[in-house]
Amino acid sequence: MNKNTSLVSFPFKVEDVDVFVNNIRTAASLPVVNEVLCVGAEKNECYKKAQKKVMQDPCLKDKNITFKVQERLGSKRPGKGDGMNTALKYFVENSNCRRIHFYDADIKNFSYKWVLESERSANMGFDVVRHYFPRARTDAMITWMITKTGFSILFPDSQLPFIEQPLGGELLMEKKVAEKLISDKDVIIQSDWGIDTIYTYKMIKNRFSMYEAYMSEGKSHSLYPGLDSLESMLYECFCVIYNLKDKKKKIKHIKHRIEHASSVSNEVEHKLGFDIQKTLLLLKQGWTEKQFELLEFFPGEVRDNMKKNKEIPIFDFMDDAAWYKTYKTMLENFVQGDKDWRKLIFKLWVARVLWYTTNVALKGYDFSFMHLYRMIDNYARVSKNVETNDTFQAPEV
Amino acid sequence: MNKNTSLVSFPFKVEDVDVFVNNIRTAASLPVVNEVLCVGAEKNECYKKAQKKVMQDPCLKDKNITFKVQERLGSKRPGKGDGMNTALKYFVENSNCRRIHFYDADIKNFSYKWVLESERSANMGFDVVRHYFPRARTDAMITWMITKTGFSILFPDSQLPFIEQPLGGELLMEKKVAEKLISDKDVIIQSDWGIDTIYTYKMIKNRFSMYEAYMSEGKSHSLYPGLDSLESMLYECFCVIYNLKDKKKKIKHIKHRIEHASSVSNEVEHKLGFDIQKTLLLLKQGWTEKQFELLEFFPGEVRDNMKKNKEIPIFDFMDDAAWYKTYKTMLENFVQGDKDWRKLIFKLWVARVLWYTTNVALKGYDFSFMHLYRMIDNYARVSKNVETNDTFQAPEV
Amino acid sequence: MNKNTSLVSFPFKVEDVDVFVNNIRTAASLPVVNEVLCVGAEKNECYKKAQKKVMQDPCLKDKNITFKVQERLGSKRPGKGDGMNTALKYFVENSNCRRIHFYDADIKNFSYKWVLESERSANMGFDVVRHYFPRARTDAMITWMITKTGFSILFPDSQLPFIEQPLGGELLMEKKVAEKLISDKDVIIQSDWGIDTIYTYKMIKNRFSMYEAYMSEGKSHSLYPGLDSLESMLYECFCVIYNLKDKKKKIKHIKHRIEHASSVSNEVEHKLGFDIQKTLLLLKQGWTEKQFELLEFFPGEVRDNMKKNKEIPIFDFMDDAAWYKTYKTMLENFVQGDKDWRKLIFKLWVARVLWYTTNVALKGYDFSFMHLYRMIDNYARVSKNVETNDTFQAPEV
Amino acid sequence: MNKNTSLVSFPFKVEDVDVFVNNIRTAASLPVVNEVLCVGAEKNECYKKAQKKVMQDPCLKDKNITFKVQERLGSKRPGKGDGMNTALKYFVENSNCRRIHFYDADIKNFSYKWVLESERSANMGFDVVRHYFPRARTDAMITWMITKTGFSILFPDSQLPFIEQPLGGELLMEKKVAEKLISDKDVIIQSDWGIDTIYTYKMIKNRFSMYEAYMSEGKSHSLYPGLDSLESMLYECFCVIYNLKDKKKKIKHIKHRIEHASSVSNEVEHKLGFDIQKTLLLLKQGWTEKQFELLEFFPGEVRDNMKKNKEIPIFDFMDDAAWYKTYKTMLENFVQGDKDWRKLIFKLWVARVLWYTTNVALKGYDFSFMHLYRMIDNYARVSKNVETNDTFQAPEV
Repeated sequence: MNKNTSLVSFPFKVEDVDVFVNNIRTAASLPVVNEVLCVGAEKNECYKKAQKKVMQDPCLKDKNITFKVQERLGSKRPGKGDGMNTALKYFVENSNCRRIHFYDADIKNFSYKWVLESERSANMGFDVVRHYFPRARTDAMITWMITKTGFSILFPDSQLPFIEQPLGGELLMEKKVAEKLISDKDVIIQSDWGIDTIYTYKMIKNRFSMYEAYMSEGKSHSLYPGLDSLESMLYECFCVIYNLKDKKKKIKHIKHRIEHASSVSNEVEHKLGFDIQKTLLLLKQGWTEKQFELLEFFPGEVRDNMKKNKEIPIFDFMDDAAWYKTYKTMLENFVQGDKDWRKLIFKLWVARVLWYTTNVALKGYDFSFMHLYRMIDNYARVSKNVETNDTFQAPEV
Repeated sequence: MNKNTSLVSFPFKVEDVDVFVNNIRTAASLPVVNEVLCVGAEKNECYKKAQKKVMQDPCLKDKNITFKVQERLGSKRPGKGDGMNTALKYFVENSNCRRIHFYDADIKNFSYKWVLESERSANMGFDVVRHYFPRARTDAMITWMITKTGFSILFPDSQLPFIEQPLGGELLMEKKVAEKLISDKDVIIQSDWGIDTIYTYKMIKNRFSMYEAYMSEGKSHSLYPGLDSLESMLYECFCVIYNLKDKKKKIKHIKHRIEHASSVSNEVEHKLGFDIQKTLLLLKQGWTEKQFELLEFFPGEVRDNMKKNKEIPIFDFMDDAAWYKTYKTMLENFVQGDKDWRKLIFKLWVARVLWYTTNVALKGYDFSFMHLYRMIDNYARVSKNVETNDTFQAPEV
Repeated sequence: MNKNTSLVSFPFKVEDVDVFVNNIRTAASLPVVNEVLCVGAEKNECYKKAQKKVMQDPCLKDKNITFKVQERLGSKRPGKGDGMNTALKYFVENSNCRRIHFYDADIKNFSYKWVLESERSANMGFDVVRHYFPRARTDAMITWMITKTGFSILFPDSQLPFIEQPLGGELLMEKKVAEKLISDKDVIIQSDWGIDTIYTYKMIKNRFSMYEAYMSEGKSHSLYPGLDSLESMLYECFCVIYNLKDKKKKIKHIKHRIEHASSVSNEVEHKLGFDIQKTLLLLKQGWTEKQFELLEFFPGEVRDNMKKNKEIPIFDFMDDAAWYKTYKTMLENFVQGDKDWRKLIFKLWVARVLWYTTNVALKGYDFSFMHLYRMIDNYARVSKNVETNDTFQAPEV
Repeated sequence: MNKNTSLVSFPFKVEDVDVFVNNIRTAASLPVVNEVLCVGAEKNECYKKAQKKVMQDPCLKDKNITFKVQERLGSKRPGKGDGMNTALKYFVENSNCRRIHFYDADIKNFSYKWVLESERSANMGFDVVRHYFPRARTDAMITWMITKTGFSILFPDSQLPFIEQPLGGELLMEKKVAEKLISDKDVIIQSDWGIDTIYTYKMIKNRFSMYEAYMSEGKSHSLYPGLDSLESMLYECFCVIYNLKDKKKKIKHIKHRIEHASSVSNEVEHKLGFDIQKTLLLLKQGWTEKQFELLEFFPGEVRDNMKKNKEIPIFDFMDDAAWYKTYKTMLENFVQGDKDWRKLIFKLWVARVLWYTTNVALKGYDFSFMHLYRMIDNYARVSKNVETNDTFQAPEV
């Protein structure tokens, strides 16, 4: 193994080629980066154009840059998971670099700082470095409402609910971490959007030490997933949580340091994560008889209010306590692969997001994050049976 | 006239008697206050209890405190206008005090500072002193969307659109101002919620100098008007603006100073002015054939989108430009006393308020006020024909 | 006169030629700008290089761009005043443009917006448009402590103390304003740093209507004046105020609108206006016997504490009340042209600035401006004899 | 051991008796509190008055409240350490409560929430709960510059430098923690201000799990230590750090959760921690020949600049890098008990605090904490030899 060298990996599908190749250039130019690996979802136009551009760039002539189509390693929907696992496998089997970095190919403000900050923290002796960023108050709604909520219900004693951005795709691993992950069947099968969740879970489970580095300039990327992708993402992220529900709850604590966040820019403070009008209209769509039946599993208030959405958008009941009960019901009764469950979970989440937006996010940026952190803390307490749902309360300011 | 003495007037109807009497006590205890005048809407329980409490209070024995039922002076719905005008009349005809103060009877945090700050500024030589307060970003939606918008369309060159809180009920006048107002027929007839608007207009029109004093602690009062009162208030405020549309537009500038506002408390920053879920549902209610016909007066986009609200709440079209055109249409085609116009204007305003809430207020407290001030400035420019609607743009930050 | 055309004028001395020529290009490229006038302090290297660059630029071939050395019009130290007056004279005598704009030549972030925003506001019918900017909390210490304080003491009833940035060099005038100024002897003689103060005073005195336009991106310029220039600037600005002390105090109010300011960027919030350590050391420097004698004019506390500065920096006595008395003493006893007065005023101001920095600026950005606005308001009240010094108090928050 | 019962302990010396007895009442009234223990530094007036007041209070008749003079357990200056250790000993030997709480006797806004929040978090299974508070930006200068800096230099890999308020006196321990501490000679000897540091160190060293609970309302207490106490406090806190310098550096990580902080009130944001003018003057005081000799141990820049302070205050050299080198020099050359070292360290710290105040604190509240957290992180990196001093840089915003 080549001490002090790193491989930078970009999983990609359809990207802005200029942005992508620029990021390759930035990574390749760093002395610590020995190899750049671009893993494409398929050999599409973007793949060919980017590869061609790289080959023709005289500055990249002597650089070690590999293009590769992702292998079909997993058993879920073929997606980002296959891409990341392909990169991990390559890193373990074919590269003599010491560390692997992952970055999304579409980061417009990618710079040498992203790589170097990770390396700085890894030099402190951490096995894993995860980047985290300032985010709009209505962004990251799958992270907060699905992933962190799920972790706090299932693993209230662990560090899992308190990892800043458990779905983040910008991370660094020492080789031993990659080796462990790639040899784990739960990881290999996760070929879809669930990959980030399973990586995060396994890192903590296997007690790799972790540093979370704060990138104050934020991540500016091109494409917000359309509402279709959002539904897949939500569903696939929830499925991983669901599959963890029978795992042993006791997880030993690891060395884990979170860099202090700074105050955010006006731009981030004023940003909106989604379109409220369009989201409202989703509540009325795609109802089936079967979904009405599934609602019978849920507490009366949730059931009755959700049913009204076939006519008119109603979301004001889905407060922190209601969402906790809703999530528990989902964990108990969900049937993997069932299309109506999938559609219903999406609508329940939409109601939850609208409650949060109109009752919390509207009150201010700092207030929103205060509320979200308190919410996760409360969920963990209730889940441990040391407190009840009734103690939920708005944070004081 | 007794130099350096003031009359403090509380118009009231149904109030928390303890709060009310406490405010009377606070006012009466000040050396500068020679007389307290309580004008009740009617001789109801609150009137009797408060009067009794005052009479039995030994501390108030030597104080000059008058209770009075408001006279029927005006010709609109009997309301707050009759109350304020009754006080003005009493002040001019029966009191030898030099200045009159008005305060709402239900201010929970009323203190000697309210009176003294007004007096301080009046001592500088201003004829009128108006209090203004930090407000929640979704508060004051009639002020911004009806009164200030109307002033900026009708009197773009004047100071009217730039008065901080033209509907504010906390103000001080020198006797000459009271005399002028009470001798004006437009003022006397305005017995309803329109009274504040007409006072403000007449003060500027008659070129009384004005100081706007900032009360950083804000005004905490008991009752938010129910949605019914809100509709009356909106309607009656709009009617006054409508009746000003043929007045001469040229108004000379007066001495006018606005005290600098301070940064607001976390409490005000986090406060919400209304319930979004309930407000959303209002868009579906009370549609009639006639209202659909009235919508034909409006620009295509406004008309078509508003019609959808009979089924599902749609508000995302009502941006600054659309509201400008909507307001102009209202000014041109409105028929006073028509119930369908009244209901339609209410729903148009609800759509406007929801657009603002989800597209502006959600982005932050400072951002919201920046937007509102720019909006009024833009409306004045367009109304003066020096710019067009197309130049509307979000403020930069 | 050519309707709807403007002349843009850049007074300059020694500037970054690239920045300067770029700004000329920006101005010249606008359809509304018919002429660009560059008035140099002298025919130095910068003058020659900039002129050459302009002449060789093919894009500027057809543009009307004039270079001119400033005339010796005034009787004070030859400086910026001669430059601006030369431009005014040229505009009145040689140009058929309708409006003149002034911009500093060294603004790094100059853009078409600066010109167009002024034009927008002038189109509303305002005679003068002044730009104002977000500034660091420890910036503008001459503006607040000398100019605004002086205006509030001498003209407490007027709008003068409440003009946002009375020393600002970015402004637009209609031709009638320029004509009035250039025909006024008080203006013509003011060849030094006092020019901005006299322009501001004369605009208000002659009742030209004024719009203050907020440029949220701020002004980023290259050179902070060294401490030597700062002393000249301070002295020359104070001299103009001193010379206004016998002018008639009654000034009628004009149409005056101030655009609402937005929340500032993190950059401005975190900026420091000067070096505290270096400034501290100034308090010990250059004391003479004569200065100790002059201190006898001042109130005991000011006198005694200032004397200690010969040994060790003492500034904690120079609060709002002490500065008010100090300023009054300066206005009464100052002798123009006396070098010891000049040095003493500088040290008094340094003590004042240090008091403000350590007792106010340190408490926060918003807090600082709240304090400064309240201070000016208080000074005006005391000066009008409606209140006494004792009422000075820290603003509540 | 009595499950679910707690002992609340108040160490005290000379306090406001009303505040103190009120706090006793608040604690005693809680069902979970079985016993209140007041440990006085001596049997002074305050002791007697408080005890008498408690005995005469009918509401406290049935409560288990003990007054006790602190034992002479340690070998340092008799002080707070003896008080806290006396309480620990009593708790272990005489009480059957399960948990002990410590609170300062002089907290004016003490309420049931302080106790209950600790209990809530202990119920989650944490061995130690520490309160932390929003603090003024210029408060806590011993914590940041002495304790956290020292921990980051000596134990860069551990959690010690990242404990929010390692000198905080509000904490809860399970019995096993108390037993461990009270049986440790290093703890017992620490009778002075060093007690908090040694408690914190031993908790981490012995791997007790820790929760840091955020009290958003802050701690309002009566007495700011005079400058004399400050010197003792600084000196005694540094001595503990100095004595840890030969301890084994490898400390295993424990379960440690920090509750998310909320945005602070305007009051805290505007608060100043100390008087700059008075602090400045300290730099000139008490210089001896010996101190000049000790300065020879220090890097040239520190040595030469510090010497100038005999004449005039100079502090602008003591940036993050200079303080790091200064601290290392102190750790290497300090002689315990030497009065000149004590005086010199105090002045070095004053210079450091002034550098921080004028270069960092002045830039803003959030900015200050950002800087302080980054500083500790940087110190840990340099100490681990993975980076050099040169990489210190201002945080970006």
